[in-house]
Amino acid sequence: MRIDDVGFDSIFKAPTTLIPAIVQDFTTHEVLMLAYMNREALTQTIKTGRATYWSRSRNELWIKGATSGHFQDVQSISLDCDSDTILLQVIQTGVACHTGEHTCFHKPIDLKE
Amino acid sequence: MRIDDVGFDSIFKAPTTLIPAIVQDFTTHEVLMLAYMNREALTQTIKTGRATYWSRSRNELWIKGATSGHFQDVQSISLDCDSDTILLQVIQTGVACHTGEHTCFHKPIDLKE
Repeated sequence: MRIDDVGFDSIFKAPTTLIPAIVQDFTTHEVLMLAYMNREALTQTIKTGRATYWSRSRNELWIKGATSGHFQDVQSISLDCDSDTILLQVIQTGVACHTGEHTCFHKPIDLKE
Repeated sequence: MRIDDVGFDSIFKAPTTLIPAIVQDFTTHEVLMLAYMNREALTQTIKTGRATYWSRSRNELWIKGATSGHFQDVQSISLDCDSDTILLQVIQTGVACHTGEHTCFHKPIDLKE
Protein backbone atom coordinates (compact mmCIF):
# COMPACT_ATOMS: atom_id res chain seq x y z
CA MET A 1 0.00 0.00 0.00
CA ARG A 2 1.14 3.54 -0.70
CA ILE A 3 0.20 6.98 0.58
CA ASP A 4 -2.26 7.41 -2.29
CA ASP A 5 -4.23 4.48 -0.85
CA VAL A 6 -4.88 6.28 2.43
CA GLY A 7 -8.29 7.94 2.78
CA PHE A 8 -7.27 11.34 4.04
CA ASP A 9 -10.51 12.90 2.92
CA SER A 10 -12.70 10.49 4.82
CA ILE A 11 -13.09 11.90 8.31
CA PHE A 12 -11.89 15.39 9.06
CA LYS A 13 -12.21 18.22 6.62
CA ALA A 14 -10.67 21.15 8.47
CA PRO A 15 -8.16 22.58 8.98
CA THR A 16 -6.65 19.72 7.07
CA THR A 17 -7.69 16.21 6.26
CA LEU A 18 -6.73 13.89 9.07
CA ILE A 19 -6.94 10.22 9.86
CA PRO A 20 -6.42 8.57 13.24
CA ALA A 21 -3.15 6.74 13.87
CA ILE A 22 -3.04 4.09 16.58
CA VAL A 23 0.41 3.76 18.11
CA GLN A 24 1.47 0.40 19.50
CA ASP A 25 4.70 -0.65 21.20
CA PHE A 26 6.55 -2.89 18.75
CA THR A 27 7.89 -5.19 21.46
CA THR A 28 5.19 -5.41 24.15
CA HIS A 29 2.20 -4.70 21.84
CA GLU A 30 0.89 -2.24 24.42
CA VAL A 31 -1.29 0.47 22.86
CA LEU A 32 0.48 3.72 23.65
CA MET A 33 -1.63 6.53 22.19
CA LEU A 34 -3.84 7.71 19.36
CA ALA A 35 -2.83 10.71 17.28
CA TYR A 36 -3.82 12.17 13.92
CA MET A 37 -1.97 12.42 10.64
CA ASN A 38 -2.43 14.32 7.43
CA ARG A 39 -0.68 13.33 4.24
CA GLU A 40 2.37 15.44 5.06
CA ALA A 41 2.70 13.84 8.51
CA LEU A 42 2.57 10.36 7.03
CA THR A 43 5.02 11.30 4.31
CA GLN A 44 7.45 12.68 6.89
CA THR A 45 7.00 9.60 9.09
CA ILE A 46 7.90 7.29 6.21
CA LYS A 47 10.78 9.50 5.08
CA THR A 48 12.40 9.98 8.49
CA GLY A 49 11.35 6.76 10.26
CA ARG A 50 10.20 8.86 13.21
CA ALA A 51 6.52 9.26 14.02
CA THR A 52 5.20 12.65 12.95
CA TYR A 53 1.60 13.72 13.55
CA TRP A 54 -0.67 16.70 13.03
CA SER A 55 -1.29 18.58 16.25
CA ARG A 56 -4.96 19.52 16.40
CA SER A 57 -4.28 21.96 19.25
CA ARG A 58 -1.39 23.77 17.62
CA ASN A 59 -2.47 23.23 14.01
CA GLU A 60 1.00 22.23 12.92
CA LEU A 61 3.14 19.22 12.16
CA TRP A 62 4.30 17.56 15.37
CA ILE A 63 7.40 15.42 15.46
CA LYS A 64 6.71 13.27 18.51
CA GLY A 65 9.67 13.76 20.86
CA ALA A 66 10.93 16.98 19.28
CA THR A 67 10.64 18.80 22.60
CA SER A 68 10.51 15.88 25.09
CA GLY A 69 13.12 13.64 23.50
CA HIS A 70 10.52 10.85 23.54
CA PHE A 71 10.84 9.90 19.91
CA GLN A 72 9.02 6.99 18.30
CA ASP A 73 11.04 4.95 15.80
CA VAL A 74 8.58 3.38 13.39
CA GLN A 75 8.94 -0.34 12.70
CA SER A 76 5.78 -0.93 10.66
CA ILE A 77 2.73 0.88 9.34
CA SER A 78 -0.53 -0.84 8.43
CA LEU A 79 -3.70 0.51 6.88
CA ASP A 80 -7.09 -0.84 7.86
CA CYS A 81 -9.67 -2.41 5.57
CA ASP A 82 -11.50 0.89 5.00
CA SER A 83 -8.23 2.78 4.43
CA ASP A 84 -9.16 5.45 6.98
CA THR A 85 -7.10 4.43 10.02
CA ILE A 86 -3.45 3.48 10.35
CA LEU A 87 -1.58 1.43 12.91
CA LEU A 88 2.03 2.24 13.75
CA GLN A 89 4.31 -0.13 15.59
CA VAL A 90 7.09 1.87 17.23
CA ILE A 91 10.07 1.62 19.49
CA GLN A 92 9.26 4.25 22.12
CA THR A 93 12.09 6.25 23.67
CA GLY A 94 11.04 7.24 27.19
CA VAL A 95 7.27 7.41 27.62
CA ALA A 96 4.43 8.04 25.18
CA CYS A 97 2.20 10.18 27.39
CA HIS A 98 2.79 13.83 28.22
CA THR A 99 1.71 13.06 31.82
CA GLY A 100 4.77 10.87 32.31
CA GLU A 101 2.81 7.60 32.13
CA HIS A 102 4.15 4.99 29.72
CA THR A 103 0.84 4.82 27.84
CA CYS A 104 -1.86 7.45 27.39
CA PHE A 105 -4.52 4.82 28.26
CA HIS A 106 -4.04 4.84 32.02
CA LYS A 107 -7.56 5.70 33.18
CA PRO A 108 -9.75 2.57 33.56
CA ILE A 109 -13.50 2.94 33.07
CA ASP A 110 -15.66 0.96 35.47
CA LEU A 111 -17.39 -1.92 33.73
CA LYS A 112 -20.36 -1.55 36.05
CA GLU A 113 -21.97 1.90 36.15
CA MET B 1 -13.49 6.88 35.45
CA ARG B 2 -17.15 7.09 34.47
CA ILE B 3 -19.03 7.93 31.30
CA ASP B 4 -19.31 11.56 32.34
CA ASP B 5 -15.53 11.76 32.14
CA VAL B 6 -15.49 10.88 28.44
CA GLY B 7 -15.15 13.79 26.03
CA PHE B 8 -17.91 12.99 23.60
CA ASP B 9 -18.09 16.59 22.40
CA SER B 10 -14.45 16.78 21.46
CA ILE B 11 -14.14 15.48 17.93
CA PHE B 12 -17.22 14.84 15.89
CA LYS B 13 -20.28 17.05 16.03
CA ALA B 14 -22.67 15.39 13.60
CA PRO B 15 -24.82 13.41 13.39
CA THR B 16 -23.91 12.62 16.96
CA THR B 17 -20.88 13.18 19.09
CA LEU B 18 -18.42 10.37 18.59
CA ILE B 19 -15.04 9.32 19.92
CA PRO B 20 -12.71 6.72 18.47
CA ALA B 21 -12.49 3.33 20.19
CA ILE B 22 -9.40 1.20 19.63
CA VAL B 23 -10.15 -2.51 19.91
CA GLN B 24 -7.40 -4.83 21.08
CA ASP B 25 -7.40 -8.60 21.54
CA PHE B 26 -7.32 -9.24 25.29
CA THR B 27 -5.07 -12.27 24.99
CA THR B 28 -2.69 -11.60 22.11
CA HIS B 29 -2.74 -7.78 22.36
CA GLU B 30 -3.19 -7.60 18.60
CA VAL B 31 -4.96 -4.41 17.50
CA LEU B 32 -8.14 -5.59 15.75
CA MET B 33 -10.00 -2.48 14.56
CA LEU B 34 -10.96 1.09 15.25
CA ALA B 35 -14.61 2.05 15.57
CA TYR B 36 -16.57 5.01 16.95
CA MET B 37 -18.81 5.35 19.98
CA ASN B 38 -21.32 7.87 21.17
CA ARG B 39 -22.50 7.98 24.77
CA GLU B 40 -25.29 5.48 24.11
CA ALA B 41 -22.89 3.01 22.49
CA LEU B 42 -20.53 3.19 25.45
CA THR B 43 -23.41 2.88 27.90
CA GLN B 44 -24.69 -0.22 26.09
CA THR B 45 -21.20 -1.69 25.93
CA ILE B 46 -20.79 -1.35 29.68
CA LYS B 47 -24.29 -2.59 30.39
CA THR B 48 -24.17 -5.66 28.15
CA GLY B 49 -20.45 -6.47 28.19
CA ARG B 50 -20.54 -6.70 24.40
CA ALA B 51 -18.89 -4.06 22.22
CA THR B 52 -21.43 -1.69 20.69
CA TYR B 53 -20.44 1.12 18.36
CA TRP B 54 -22.00 3.88 16.32
CA SER B 55 -22.08 3.02 12.62
CA ARG B 56 -21.11 6.13 10.66
CA SER B 57 -22.34 4.55 7.42
CA ARG B 58 -25.74 3.46 8.72
CA ASN B 59 -26.15 6.20 11.36
CA GLU B 60 -27.31 3.76 13.98
CA LEU B 61 -26.11 1.78 16.97
CA TRP B 62 -24.12 -1.23 15.87
CA ILE B 63 -23.76 -4.26 18.10
CA LYS B 64 -20.60 -5.83 16.72
CA GLY B 65 -21.49 -9.40 15.77
CA ALA B 66 -25.26 -8.88 15.67
CA THR B 67 -25.38 -10.06 12.06
CA SER B 68 -22.06 -11.94 11.72
CA GLY B 69 -22.00 -13.65 15.10
CA HIS B 70 -18.53 -12.18 15.62
CA PHE B 71 -19.21 -10.64 19.01
CA GLN B 72 -16.62 -8.90 21.15
CA ASP B 73 -16.80 -9.60 24.87
CA VAL B 74 -15.29 -6.64 26.65
CA GLN B 75 -12.70 -7.33 29.33
CA SER B 76 -11.51 -3.79 30.04
CA ILE B 77 -12.07 -0.21 28.93
CA SER B 78 -9.52 2.56 29.37
CA LEU B 79 -9.75 6.26 28.66
CA ASP B 80 -6.75 8.20 27.42
CA CYS B 81 -5.11 11.21 29.07
CA ASP B 82 -7.16 13.70 27.03
CA SER B 83 -10.41 11.76 27.61
CA ASP B 84 -11.21 11.70 23.90
CA THR B 85 -10.22 8.15 22.91
CA ILE B 86 -10.98 4.81 24.50
CA LEU B 87 -9.24 1.46 24.38
CA LEU B 88 -11.25 -1.75 24.61
CA GLN B 89 -9.69 -5.11 25.36
CA VAL B 90 -11.97 -7.83 24.04
CA ILE B 91 -12.31 -11.54 23.54
CA GLN B 92 -13.10 -11.78 19.84
CA THR B 93 -15.46 -14.48 18.61
CA GLY B 94 -14.50 -15.34 15.02
CA VAL B 95 -12.77 -12.48 13.24
CA ALA B 96 -12.87 -8.72 13.71
CA CYS B 97 -12.79 -7.66 10.05
CA HIS B 98 -15.72 -7.82 7.65
CA THR B 99 -13.28 -9.05 4.96
CA GLY B 100 -12.72 -12.27 6.92
CA GLU B 101 -9.24 -11.27 8.11
CA HIS B 102 -8.61 -11.59 11.83
CA THR B 103 -7.64 -7.92 12.15
CA CYS B 104 -8.70 -4.93 10.06
CA PHE B 105 -5.06 -3.83 9.86
CA HIS B 106 -3.92 -6.25 7.19
CA LYS B 107 -2.58 -3.83 4.57
CA PRO B 108 1.09 -2.94 5.19
CA ILE B 109 2.33 0.44 3.98
CA ASP B 110 5.80 0.47 2.47
CA LEU B 111 8.29 2.23 4.72
CA LYS B 112 10.18 3.47 1.66
CA GLU B 113 8.16 5.42 -0.89
